[in-house]
Amino acid sequence: MERLSSPHDMQQWANDQRRSGRTVAFVPTMGFFHPGHLQLMEYGRSRADRLVVSLFVNPLQFGPGEDFERYPRDEERDLALARGAGADVLFSPSPEDLYPVHFQTHVTVEKVSRGLCGASRPGHFRGVATVVLKLFHLVQPHWAIFGLKDYQQYVVIRRMVEDLNLDLEVVGRPTVREPDGLAMSSRNVYLSPEERRSALALSASLKAARERCRSGERRAAVLLEDVVRRISGEARARLDYARIVDPETLDDTDLIRDKAVLILAAWVGKTRLIDNGFLEGNPDCPA
Amino acid sequence: MERLSSPHDMQQWANDQRRSGRTVAFVPTMGFFHPGHLQLMEYGRSRADRLVVSLFVNPLQFGPGEDFERYPRDEERDLALARGAGADVLFSPSPEDLYPVHFQTHVTVEKVSRGLCGASRPGHFRGVATVVLKLFHLVQPHWAIFGLKDYQQYVVIRRMVEDLNLDLEVVGRPTVREPDGLAMSSRNVYLSPEERRSALALSASLKAARERCRSGERRAAVLLEDVVRRISGEARARLDYARIVDPETLDDTDLIRDKAVLILAAWVGKTRLIDNGFLEGNPDCPA
Repeated sequence: MERLSSPHDMQQWANDQRRSGRTVAFVPTMGFFHPGHLQLMEYGRSRADRLVVSLFVNPLQFGPGEDFERYPRDEERDLALARGAGADVLFSPSPEDLYPVHFQTHVTVEKVSRGLCGASRPGHFRGVATVVLKLFHLVQPHWAIFGLKDYQQYVVIRRMVEDLNLDLEVVGRPTVREPDGLAMSSRNVYLSPEERRSALALSASLKAARERCRSGERRAAVLLEDVVRRISGEARARLDYARIVDPETLDDTDLIRDKAVLILAAWVGKTRLIDNGFLEGNPDCPA
Repeated sequence: MERLSSPHDMQQWANDQRRSGRTVAFVPTMGFFHPGHLQLMEYGRSRADRLVVSLFVNPLQFGPGEDFERYPRDEERDLALARGAGADVLFSPSPEDLYPVHFQTHVTVEKVSRGLCGASRPGHFRGVATVVLKLFHLVQPHWAIFGLKDYQQYVVIRRMVEDLNLDLEVVGRPTVREPDGLAMSSRNVYLSPEERRSALALSASLKAARERCRSGERRAAVLLEDVVRRISGEARARLDYARIVDPETLDDTDLIRDKAVLILAAWVGKTRLIDNGFLEGNPDCPA
């Protein structure tokens, strides 16, 4: 595995692959790998001739007062894990490499960035879209692999790729969970043992809503009421939002007819966690 | 020469060129070609194995009340001229091709888009940057050729290319002028014979400022005073702005030490015209 930090070297490497007719899969990350990241890498590895993993804690997507400074980092461990997962390149540029002093260009994906996490974290998805577009230009992947745990991010990137005519496919892969259901996240290390237990309310409420929907309850308001009740019932948890939305537009859904996503964010202690799950309307059973 | 209108076909063609190791020069235009456009094409033709010219009157870069509807168009004539200039592809997508119904992604180059034409035409450079980035993704050029007549646009595109790590070179080519000095522009057809004469105040005042600067006058305020006087002296002309700016940052310059650009916009009747020229400080003659 090669380690590259210069954007120029990364682009050169990518050009060489393209010229040789080799396909490239790309997993952009902020590091501190957990099995969710590793599954993205394994998928990328299986799909393409070459696998690039980027490791960059992107200052542009953190707001003032957010956890940019203390975001967990362990580059040596990440290096070993990426190598183990079969990455050909680990690309870890510095903030100065990606944002030199005159940097002033931003990408905004308007509608799908606005609500949900976009409402609580102004500028977050602008920072995500901008860095991901830069990375796409440097890595020139055929496939870019994202975890569906960050569902709104996945929708934002898909929209950007389509709207800007980028010649690559965005692949979303299922959330990887702990045995008790907690969605894997680098931020889980922030949780105390008590908070860790409270955090289970997120995945448990999602699971309950999926089952209730499967049993015939198609009214979003009814399903959400239960999610709110379960999360508000946890002493250490404070719900930021819970919504049932269209999987593409992220517009609110009143009645689940076909497919919808239940998407939520909550503070557990000082840690903000997100989770989501698909709800499927059963066409045999009219809503 | 091939005519392509589908973005997908354009990208396919570009992929084929890249795979075959051929270089591509690209001249993005809004059509209604004049010798300025043709010189950009000839330059591109001389530089690369293949030349792509795009023809797209981009609704996104026109504000409400601007001349999008009546912008001059003559596709058959343009076709013949592009063929004559040696273009391999004329790419002319429809607005619906480039902006389908869910389109919502925009690129903003912040600082250099703000003043000058950006102040008079809010959203203009956001529209320019967005469409040019889309076209770059479709055409995948090695060189993108722009006329320096649209100097702020050239700076915006250069900044975008650097900031977003695009793997191409932006080339700016000198303004082509009528024998009497008027900068060539598709919008010159709007001018009545009287307006056509008044419009000469733009290039004449630029020329006078260049000469005065060459003779030792390095104070921007003094040079600009003369430009304002000349243009205000024309009954049919109304100055929008005249500024002397740094060629890269477009920040105002008080004293011309090295290189600076005198950049201006004026209404002549109902037509908005722009022009600019480099001013060079003479290092042998201290300011």
